Amino acid sequence: MPDVKLLETFPTPPSSGPIVIEHIGEEFTSTCPKTGHPDFGTVTVRYEPARAGTPASGGCVELKSLKLYYQSFRNEGIFYEAVTGTIRDDLAKLLSPIWLQIETNWRGRGGIRSIIRADVGAVPHEYRGR
Amino acid sequence: MPDVKLLETFPTPPSSGPIVIEHIGEEFTSTCPKTGHPDFGTVTVRYEPARAGTPASGGCVELKSLKLYYQSFRNEGIFYEAVTGTIRDDLAKLLSPIWLQIETNWRGRGGIRSIIRADVGAVPHEYRGR
Amino acid sequence: MPDVKLLETFPTPPSSGPIVIEHIGEEFTSTCPKTGHPDFGTVTVRYEPARAGTPASGGCVELKSLKLYYQSFRNEGIFYEAVTGTIRDDLAKLLSPIWLQIETNWRGRGGIRSIIRADVGAVPHEYRGR
Amino acid sequence: MPDVKLLETFPTPPSSGPIVIEHIGEEFTSTCPKTGHPDFGTVTVRYEPARAGTPASGGCVELKSLKLYYQSFRNEGIFYEAVTGTIRDDLAKLLSPIWLQIETNWRGRGGIRSIIRADVGAVPHEYRGR
Amino acid sequence: MPDVKLLETFPTPPSSGPIVIEHIGEEFTSTCPKTGHPDFGTVTVRYEPARAGTPASGGCVELKSLKLYYQSFRNEGIFYEAVTGTIRDDLAKLLSPIWLQIETNWRGRGGIRSIIRADVGAVPHEYRGR
Amino acid sequence: MPDVKLLETFPTPPSSGPIVIEHIGEEFTSTCPKTGHPDFGTVTVRYEPARAGTPASGGCVELKSLKLYYQSFRNEGIFYEAVTGTIRDDLAKLLSPIWLQIETNWRGRGGIRSIIRADVGAVPHEYRGR
Amino acid sequence: MPDVKLLETFPTPPSSGPIVIEHIGEEFTSTCPKTGHPDFGTVTVRYEPARAGTPASGGCVELKSLKLYYQSFRNEGIFYEAVTGTIRDDLAKLLSPIWLQIETNWRGRGGIRSIIRADVGAVPHEYRGR
Amino acid sequence: MPDVKLLETFPTPPSSGPIVIEHIGEEFTSTCPKTGHPDFGTVTVRYEPARAGTPASGGCVELKSLKLYYQSFRNEGIFYEAVTGTIRDDLAKLLSPIWLQIETNWRGRGGIRSIIRADVGAVPHEYRGR
Amino acid sequence: MPDVKLLETFPTPPSSGPIVIEHIGEEFTSTCPKTGHPDFGTVTVRYEPARAGTPASGGCVELKSLKLYYQSFRNEGIFYEAVTGTIRDDLAKLLSPIWLQIETNWRGRGGIRSIIRADVGAVPHEYRGR
Amino acid sequence: MPDVKLLETFPTPPSSGPIVIEHIGEEFTSTCPKTGHPDFGTVTVRYEPARAGTPASGGCVELKSLKLYYQSFRNEGIFYEAVTGTIRDDLAKLLSPIWLQIETNWRGRGGIRSIIRADVGAVPHEYRGR
Repeated sequence: MPDVKLLETFPTPPSSGPIVIEHIGEEFTSTCPKTGHPDFGTVTVRYEPARAGTPASGGCVELKSLKLYYQSFRNEGIFYEAVTGTIRDDLAKLLSPIWLQIETNWRGRGGIRSIIRADVGAVPHEYRGR
Repeated sequence: MPDVKLLETFPTPPSSGPIVIEHIGEEFTSTCPKTGHPDFGTVTVRYEPARAGTPASGGCVELKSLKLYYQSFRNEGIFYEAVTGTIRDDLAKLLSPIWLQIETNWRGRGGIRSIIRADVGAVPHEYRGR
Repeated sequence: MPDVKLLETFPTPPSSGPIVIEHIGEEFTSTCPKTGHPDFGTVTVRYEPARAGTPASGGCVELKSLKLYYQSFRNEGIFYEAVTGTIRDDLAKLLSPIWLQIETNWRGRGGIRSIIRADVGAVPHEYRGR
Repeated sequence: MPDVKLLETFPTPPSSGPIVIEHIGEEFTSTCPKTGHPDFGTVTVRYEPARAGTPASGGCVELKSLKLYYQSFRNEGIFYEAVTGTIRDDLAKLLSPIWLQIETNWRGRGGIRSIIRADVGAVPHEYRGR
Repeated sequence: MPDVKLLETFPTPPSSGPIVIEHIGEEFTSTCPKTGHPDFGTVTVRYEPARAGTPASGGCVELKSLKLYYQSFRNEGIFYEAVTGTIRDDLAKLLSPIWLQIETNWRGRGGIRSIIRADVGAVPHEYRGR
Repeated sequence: MPDVKLLETFPTPPSSGPIVIEHIGEEFTSTCPKTGHPDFGTVTVRYEPARAGTPASGGCVELKSLKLYYQSFRNEGIFYEAVTGTIRDDLAKLLSPIWLQIETNWRGRGGIRSIIRADVGAVPHEYRGR
Repeated sequence: MPDVKLLETFPTPPSSGPIVIEHIGEEFTSTCPKTGHPDFGTVTVRYEPARAGTPASGGCVELKSLKLYYQSFRNEGIFYEAVTGTIRDDLAKLLSPIWLQIETNWRGRGGIRSIIRADVGAVPHEYRGR
Repeated sequence: MPDVKLLETFPTPPSSGPIVIEHIGEEFTSTCPKTGHPDFGTVTVRYEPARAGTPASGGCVELKSLKLYYQSFRNEGIFYEAVTGTIRDDLAKLLSPIWLQIETNWRGRGGIRSIIRADVGAVPHEYRGR
Repeated sequence: MPDVKLLETFPTPPSSGPIVIEHIGEEFTSTCPKTGHPDFGTVTVRYEPARAGTPASGGCVELKSLKLYYQSFRNEGIFYEAVTGTIRDDLAKLLSPIWLQIETNWRGRGGIRSIIRADVGAVPHEYRGR
Repeated sequence: MPDVKLLETFPTPPSSGPIVIEHIGEEFTSTCPKTGHPDFGTVTVRYEPARAGTPASGGCVELKSLKLYYQSFRNEGIFYEAVTGTIRDDLAKLLSPIWLQIETNWRGRGGIRSIIRADVGAVPHEYRGR
């Protein structure tokens, strides 16, 4: 079962300017709640962490804990949209980031591949057009 | 015959921010109304669904019904532009989305490949430049 | 000899929103007016047709006629820039489109490849950043 | 020795709209002034020529002369930045273009590849986002 | 140990317009401070140097010294974010550039690849949308 | 319905040595006899035709007739293995070739793609290892 | 738990020559018996089925049952070599094929990817060199 | 009209061992004798020239003359197989090579691409399996 | 320092036929004994282990120990050929395999990339032509 | 001028089995003796060195000397075939290898690319089919 408690953070390092972090997890699997068949996809997290010293800052997500969090979806029956929304909401609450974007990219079924993208906050100027 | 009644929807999940959904159907075929020869292409649907709780919201399109809807074009004699326009109009009416874009990409004939793109609404800020 | 009379049109289909059409012709050849050697390239037409019912609308270009029109350049001695300009001017006059862009992409000579791009009208908002 | 006198021009063809020209020269070589070892790279020229009939217009650069001009760098000891700047300055003086951009892309040494980009004038609206 | 003293500079060459320089170092390695295992990645530096003659200008970074500076991270235990921030801060102090961007792209662990991007100054107009 | 009568031939041209012919048909579709869903694939025919003047020679298959023959499978419910075997048997009977190989490559279902290969005669020496 | 009873067969179709079948399953996952972390890979089955009418022939493996059989490894703790050997032994017993080859291709851990290949019988002449 | 008189040769250079030469001509065009439409393809010549000093040796084919010879097919109505056979026979007569292989690779029509291969002599041991 | 004691093995699993194992390590680094600069490369091990129950069998190499063994070359000054030979000799002694092949693929210096391949025993029939 | 005296060797390391070495030089340039225009290509050396202790063994070619030797062709007017033959003969004399193969791959002129391959000795069994 997806378990937000698996996620750990570390403080945003002090920095002279904005930083954008992207983690591309190419080994994600959950199951379809309708058919029970497994779904396979890639989950990408992109975010600008709250600046160091910001009171509400949750900092940055620790990479190994992110992997374990992803693994907690393995046998969960859950739709594409809900995977995307759940990860966004969990990370947004945890990190209080300036910007956060989750993109899930699914291998698909019956000849149709799907890509779902969900944002919190505005795309940073430095990241546009990439 | 293209049959909009094949399409089913589900409610947009409640969400703390905008979501953009893309379905890439790589196994589309119809026939040319002039020559009767088959056309092969990819149909991509990109949209931002109406927010949860919006009165007129049609929600999201269900994936398996989308596949059956595509299959209903199989033996239809219909031009590229009309395929693109029909899918846009059927989905726009069904979903009342904030934004909808249909892109059809055809293998072509006689050395000319074609790409047709039709929009309803404005490209969401989060999606620009992708 | 490039012959605009080969081009045929059909009316823009009635539409609830903007449409952008792209035809990628990968089998174009003409000859160099200086050396007589053949040039090989790709000619891409991108346009937003005048809306259905617009008085001056020339509609959309018919695909088979476009192919024959391209073939009429086969033994013509003509520079890259003139090929690009001629196709733009012929199609602009024929279609009175909202936007039209011709891009020619040449295999090149002596280790230098060339790409020429000519526009009429402003790039539609929906097409930017692609 | 890089020799600007090798460059020839031809008048910009009369045109109903803006034109952007790109020449990609994939066979460029010069030598490193420090080590004497050869450098290999690609030189791309992108420009919007002055319009036909503009008094100061230098027109367009002739392709074969551009190739000979590139060859004149073959045994020149010259840094990446100076190659890029020299070509920009020579072409800018020759053509008085509306916009000119030189991009040199070097195979590199010691595991570091380099790309240098130098502009004169503003990127044309039609070219942005490519 | 990362050693900024390894870095050398040369004066920005006089120039009739803006220049953007990109160095792509594909052979970077450091070690994970937690596990001691080596990390492998690509480090890209993109910057617009201060103009020639600007009082505070640090000029351009010399390429061979950049390579030696990268090698000084080889046996350093340091996180991805700190690598990115350290290189940005060292180069920003050294060069006082108009714009500077460091992008580190890591091969990753446990099925998750990471890309970190840190900026100083605003992305130059000429570089946007690339 | 697959209809061998659609296939036409022309005599093998007189030749000073062996010839191997390969036709790659990338737009093949039939339907699954179990589910009724369409299957999409590529059909490749490779053969060494009987030599000119050989009594039983069926010559070479005419390309446009091959395309129409493929189209006759469009609404046929037929398994992958039967498609492959039917095409091999129809062409072998028609052409009496020295060697014939049919390779069908299917986009697949449920995450499993399939390739089926059926031969008549021995792979020509000239073709091995390609 | 890997369950051979999930596998179903159908009789080899009567055929005028040898046939080679390849199924490429790109969505395989099991878990590491040491660490409990999931492994992701591609499983390819290549075989020449026993000829139709051969007494001991097990025929061909049914595709949907193969998919369910693969899914039975999902939460099994099992090494790469054992996955490969188990699938080979289960299919060899089921089909009594002329030739059978299993190739598993794993995304890997710690920067090392693995490919395991196990055969039963001799590679058919028609398949060599592919 | 294809004109073998355009072809020129030069003597095989004296050599301590076998040599294999491959010329890949990516800009070939002829026309279809049935429809008059242009065909586009790649023509590859591979050969082992007769050894220097062999009485009947025709030596090697001169590259510029090969290009002009290819251009002589430009407006010829001729089938794929005849193009392949004509080039093989013309070059075989001219060069008396130890081995000669012509491979023509056509962009195709109606969704079917074609590759034709014709040999004279045995594939040299050094070239097999490439 | 390369340390063979880091390598661990496990017994070859009992098997009904030959098995070939390939480990592709894409994160290898050592240093050049002449210049002290780091070398980066990929090390591939391919082997057929001794059969289960063979007296002298060393079994299979354990993957995590292989990674640690590779890491022991990190600060070793050693030539390409010696890296390749050392790994071959260490693994051959450890495993007594039926066949073993080491292939090292180096990013190179000064525009020259290198690939070194060393074998022990004969390439298994099942592996040829891959 | 190509200068064999630039080449240096080192003794073949003692080895328990055959070794095959491949050096891929992607930055080769010479000039055309007819037109004076530069030619650009890749030169690949593949060889099995004489075994350690063999009396006539020339050992292995040293990499930096190979680079300087290549650079000595920079301003030499020499045909493709002669470049290939000269390098083969120089290395064969220097190394007395068991097998040596030179492959030159040229960017080409007028739409025709060329690949020339020259061998001394028999392709080693371990290298076939790669």
